[in-house]
Amino acid sequence: MKRETPEERRRRLFQAAKESVSKAYAGEEHSVMQAINAYNEFEKMRGIIYERLEEWYSMYFPELSVGSQAAYAKFVLRFGANKKAAEISDLREVFGGSAEGIKRRIDSSIGREPTKEEYGAMSRLAESMLYVISMEEDLNSYLKESTKRLMPNMVYLIDYKIAAEMLSKAGSLTKLAMMPASTIQLLGAEKALFRHIKFGSKPPKYGLLYKINQMSSTRRDERGKLARIYATKLSIASKADAFSKRFIADKLKAEIDKATRRR
Amino acid sequence: MKRETPEERRRRLFQAAKESVSKAYAGEEHSVMQAINAYNEFEKMRGIIYERLEEWYSMYFPELSVGSQAAYAKFVLRFGANKKAAEISDLREVFGGSAEGIKRRIDSSIGREPTKEEYGAMSRLAESMLYVISMEEDLNSYLKESTKRLMPNMVYLIDYKIAAEMLSKAGSLTKLAMMPASTIQLLGAEKALFRHIKFGSKPPKYGLLYKINQMSSTRRDERGKLARIYATKLSIASKADAFSKRFIADKLKAEIDKATRRR
Repeated sequence: MKRETPEERRRRLFQAAKESVSKAYAGEEHSVMQAINAYNEFEKMRGIIYERLEEWYSMYFPELSVGSQAAYAKFVLRFGANKKAAEISDLREVFGGSAEGIKRRIDSSIGREPTKEEYGAMSRLAESMLYVISMEEDLNSYLKESTKRLMPNMVYLIDYKIAAEMLSKAGSLTKLAMMPASTIQLLGAEKALFRHIKFGSKPPKYGLLYKINQMSSTRRDERGKLARIYATKLSIASKADAFSKRFIADKLKAEIDKATRRR
Repeated sequence: MKRETPEERRRRLFQAAKESVSKAYAGEEHSVMQAINAYNEFEKMRGIIYERLEEWYSMYFPELSVGSQAAYAKFVLRFGANKKAAEISDLREVFGGSAEGIKRRIDSSIGREPTKEEYGAMSRLAESMLYVISMEEDLNSYLKESTKRLMPNMVYLIDYKIAAEMLSKAGSLTKLAMMPASTIQLLGAEKALFRHIKFGSKPPKYGLLYKINQMSSTRRDERGKLARIYATKLSIASKADAFSKRFIADKLKAEIDKATRRR
């Protein structure tokens, strides 16, 4: 076998250096952070597209009301070109029990039908709404799976989307794990905290944690306490996810239940 | 033939009233306004999605640079799952002459390949970028056709997208036609005008008109004059579009050319 030349050696070491850099990005946490941010952005886009679509199509059918954004887009896409021609059986296929009500509103609508060109442009908007919804679903299911792999303890305690947002706010799993519980409690409340420090407004009691399910069913004056309990346990959970990789969340969950029941 | 009963008469008159309401919305101008607003919104969304995609994929291939947002998305979609496996012939098919440069960057990249799950989520983002671009193209071609029908004089003088935005700011073709030239000159500069009135900052010289092609090639201190010339002629053009429906824009265009050449 040939001996390594200096040039080969330089290349081999350079290669090793590159590999160590890529290892730093090897974890899935970066993807999770990108995915949760993309998800939040798509959610906003859906709102914008829906507003635009509703403003547009209400020119032709101001009386339409179907309960959900997706259903509205589906109506425009399937029946918007000529609503008067919509068969009750087709309406039933898409809207089930509300088909009769919709049919009555169609019959008494004051809106005209769009021209072919108008419908062409408008239906693209409806289509893009459904597209964005499917995009959200895909990112959502990626988030669900990936957070389970990456931070099994945290997602046992709180919704995986809240956990992913916490990770994104912290910047990395290690950083999150190094945070004191009080910082975790206020993750996402940076602006309110700043207002408190600078202008002396009331200090925030929770940030992202206001999104956990239990919050809404808890009395206003006990929400701060609830957030503190969660933050304490999440702080332990994040350390287990980042360092020991052991599953201890069932115990933590029991402790949360006990602490919140006692009050 | 039966005589009309009071009930039938009531129905007939109600029907007539409804028809007159739908006639008020009969014109294409409402669709044009919705379309230009949707277009602007999609343009913003594209920027947001691109930023997210670039931040995400640069984890795997920080060295990639391909010149356009669409090309970036195409790379991620087609080669992002395993960039090292990209054949030079396939790269050439998509990127033509830049294929060799890209191949070199792939070979020396420090980025790892994404996992199957990561690629799944990220490629959806790339796909949605291309989707939004196709959406913009469709709205764009609708706008191009519809403004030609609706305001042929105005679009002869300025870009149809600027004309559509002016229409949207004004609220209707009739309202636009009733505006004095000075208001048309400042359409889209409402905030700057407000700042001028309230805080005494410099008054704006133009609003949407800063987007016309000639503006960038005109000396800074002559841009106000250029905007005034255009506004005067657009004011006449809009009246022709709204009321007389005659085509006079070729004469107006000649007058603009004469006025701007003389200076």
